[in-house]
Amino acid sequence: MVDWTDVVFGSAIKFSYSGTEYEGIFIHCDDDIVTVKLSNGYNLALQKDQINLVKIIRKAPENGEAVPQQKLAKDKIRNAGKKHVSLLATGGTIASKVDYKTGAVSPSEDIGFISDRVKDVEVSSETIDNILSENITPEKWIYMAGKIRDSLNRSDGCIVFHGTDTMSYSASAISFMFSDQTGPIVFVGSQRSSDRPSSDAFMNAEGAIHMATTDFGEVGIAMHRNLSDESISMHRAVRSRKMHTSRRDAFRSIGESEVGTYSHGSVRLLPPYRKTGVKNEIKQKLDPSVSMIYFYPSLSVEDFEGMVSKKKAVIIMGTGLGHVSHSLIPSITQATKEGTKILMTSQCLYGSVNLNVYSTGRDLIRAGIIPLRNMLPEVALVKAMYVLGNYAEEQFEEMMKENLRGEIIEREQALVFGGAD
Amino acid sequence: MVDWTDVVFGSAIKFSYSGTEYEGIFIHCDDDIVTVKLSNGYNLALQKDQINLVKIIRKAPENGEAVPQQKLAKDKIRNAGKKHVSLLATGGTIASKVDYKTGAVSPSEDIGFISDRVKDVEVSSETIDNILSENITPEKWIYMAGKIRDSLNRSDGCIVFHGTDTMSYSASAISFMFSDQTGPIVFVGSQRSSDRPSSDAFMNAEGAIHMATTDFGEVGIAMHRNLSDESISMHRAVRSRKMHTSRRDAFRSIGESEVGTYSHGSVRLLPPYRKTGVKNEIKQKLDPSVSMIYFYPSLSVEDFEGMVSKKKAVIIMGTGLGHVSHSLIPSITQATKEGTKILMTSQCLYGSVNLNVYSTGRDLIRAGIIPLRNMLPEVALVKAMYVLGNYAEEQFEEMMKENLRGEIIEREQALVFGGAD
Repeated sequence: MVDWTDVVFGSAIKFSYSGTEYEGIFIHCDDDIVTVKLSNGYNLALQKDQINLVKIIRKAPENGEAVPQQKLAKDKIRNAGKKHVSLLATGGTIASKVDYKTGAVSPSEDIGFISDRVKDVEVSSETIDNILSENITPEKWIYMAGKIRDSLNRSDGCIVFHGTDTMSYSASAISFMFSDQTGPIVFVGSQRSSDRPSSDAFMNAEGAIHMATTDFGEVGIAMHRNLSDESISMHRAVRSRKMHTSRRDAFRSIGESEVGTYSHGSVRLLPPYRKTGVKNEIKQKLDPSVSMIYFYPSLSVEDFEGMVSKKKAVIIMGTGLGHVSHSLIPSITQATKEGTKILMTSQCLYGSVNLNVYSTGRDLIRAGIIPLRNMLPEVALVKAMYVLGNYAEEQFEEMMKENLRGEIIEREQALVFGGAD
Repeated sequence: MVDWTDVVFGSAIKFSYSGTEYEGIFIHCDDDIVTVKLSNGYNLALQKDQINLVKIIRKAPENGEAVPQQKLAKDKIRNAGKKHVSLLATGGTIASKVDYKTGAVSPSEDIGFISDRVKDVEVSSETIDNILSENITPEKWIYMAGKIRDSLNRSDGCIVFHGTDTMSYSASAISFMFSDQTGPIVFVGSQRSSDRPSSDAFMNAEGAIHMATTDFGEVGIAMHRNLSDESISMHRAVRSRKMHTSRRDAFRSIGESEVGTYSHGSVRLLPPYRKTGVKNEIKQKLDPSVSMIYFYPSLSVEDFEGMVSKKKAVIIMGTGLGHVSHSLIPSITQATKEGTKILMTSQCLYGSVNLNVYSTGRDLIRAGIIPLRNMLPEVALVKAMYVLGNYAEEQFEEMMKENLRGEIIEREQALVFGGAD
């Protein structure tokens, strides 16, 4: 039996596990689990008592120099009888720790904290980025989509650690880019970093990993279901929204029920949902020439035209059923004539745009506006980038109005909006 | 006993009621109530069996010509034992009917529909505008504030018929403009016009009128509390938001409980709230040089700078705790140096901005951003117009951070955000 306390973090080691030999860098250890970084960047988190340490190839350099990665023998990380979930870390609170000297929250590559909670699943991890999610860009979604596809090609499901600020935007972008997928893609974040006692990182990751072992062939977001630490909701990415700045149950499914729950070790999926498919097929182009305008009383024609100028598509967050002031209608008419696509969503967030009820709506239809029913504004933004990037201009309106990934709900579920008793 | 069916609508009449003689134009009649337009523009809705018709001064012209208004003897419209509520109509669905030929919803001055529902209250009405609320402007808020002040000076409370699309913006603007008020100001709208069987106009108006007879010295919004037609919620204007495009219970109090309810004939107010004061004091200036920017991934520096340019203040709807991409921080630094006030709210809507948790927040503080805690973005917009219009520039930040009308909640009520069971 190896005494792992004798092995210095950062050492290159050779070990065997389930009859296969591996080499890698020893990066984490706790009561039950040892984490080793393989040469392909993946972290293997394994049960300590099942590892045979063959030898220490090279001790960690004491001066903190980088250890050169070894060319490893094999990337076979599946273990008979266990599902394998790949974890891609992009940054965010869930991959951060607090620096107790400065109080700052900073990124951490140490994701060993999840290993001892998911002994029934094999988890390999890779850090593909390390940013706060407010800095996410369409280019990063393209990179992320490729990494997720590669992960799904060698695992049963993929979870993505992501900052919560823009998680719905990112997960929606990935949702549109995957027209088929062999396993679940589950985005997961946390509202408190993993080294705080109140952290939701552990339970969210545990829930996401288990959801990633199911036949859910869509993109979901797994976060706390309520203020207890016992229950996780999975939301369909394209119907999810961060609705609270700080609560652990900040995410909500808008206009429909959550699509899955996890509690006390078991996952419950709530059909209908798309089942996992046969291949990982992505359309990787996104055209960022899309702007989003929040309408408000006194929004000037000049500001409106500035936001429309040089864009291929514009998402308006109108009032109520999808309205703006009549003062903007000439600019809309002009822009649509010149080929700019202008699309209407509602700042109410709940409910559907309907431009056939009031005269303003009918005027907007005449001005060339495309109404998007109950599609969420943020989802419309990334969908427009996806449709512009991958389809001919003539298909734009039809594709935007078509329900591609569940972003349009055919019948809103009354219970979800709630209401006073 | 007069047979009112003999009196033609539009006729000028002289009548007595509770010992006082009046002259006016007969405009509406139903089973119990007669409505007469006085020369001051107010409509008096009176119980039919208590009116003595003295004479018909002039029959309505059959060719539809306007009837010249008479100089009336008196404006005394209070009735001993009854509260008097003044109704100002600005337009919107609640003051509209459907044209069953075209399907279009168009404005209507006939507000007689409420009279038979509020026999315990005397209601006088005046149409001060007739617009769809998406066309509201700060100039109209200024006019509205003056009209409300005049109404409160001669009644116990005022209700304002308003389109629901921008009702929270308007009611918040009025709330800031009134630093003291002698009676409640209750905005009320409807999601279905009054000639539709499913209309919420009747019950909303009935609730609003009764709320306007209380000691609530603030501005509220009265709308359906849930999908039944039996219960009305009053929301504090500066914490209200239209959260659904079409449901009758579209309005919600964000982060706090409703401030009042009305059902089965009785009002229940839920303290704390400001009590009615001794005078109607308004600061009537609004500076519209404020823009609102909804942040999203890929928002360009150029578009951001365009929306900031030439503004005295800018409200950002940031992600999460109040973040934007680091790519925008140099522009923010530059703008605040040049004197533009840049304020942070959250697109999550629920919860508070906090710029002390993450590095992005601290960078934004250094760039000169003013965080607005849990103030709603739309409320921040109109508050900035109010503060810029009425106070010295040096007071701006302090005033914006001060809780003037309940727009900042000291302790968020967990129950209000809800959550799954």
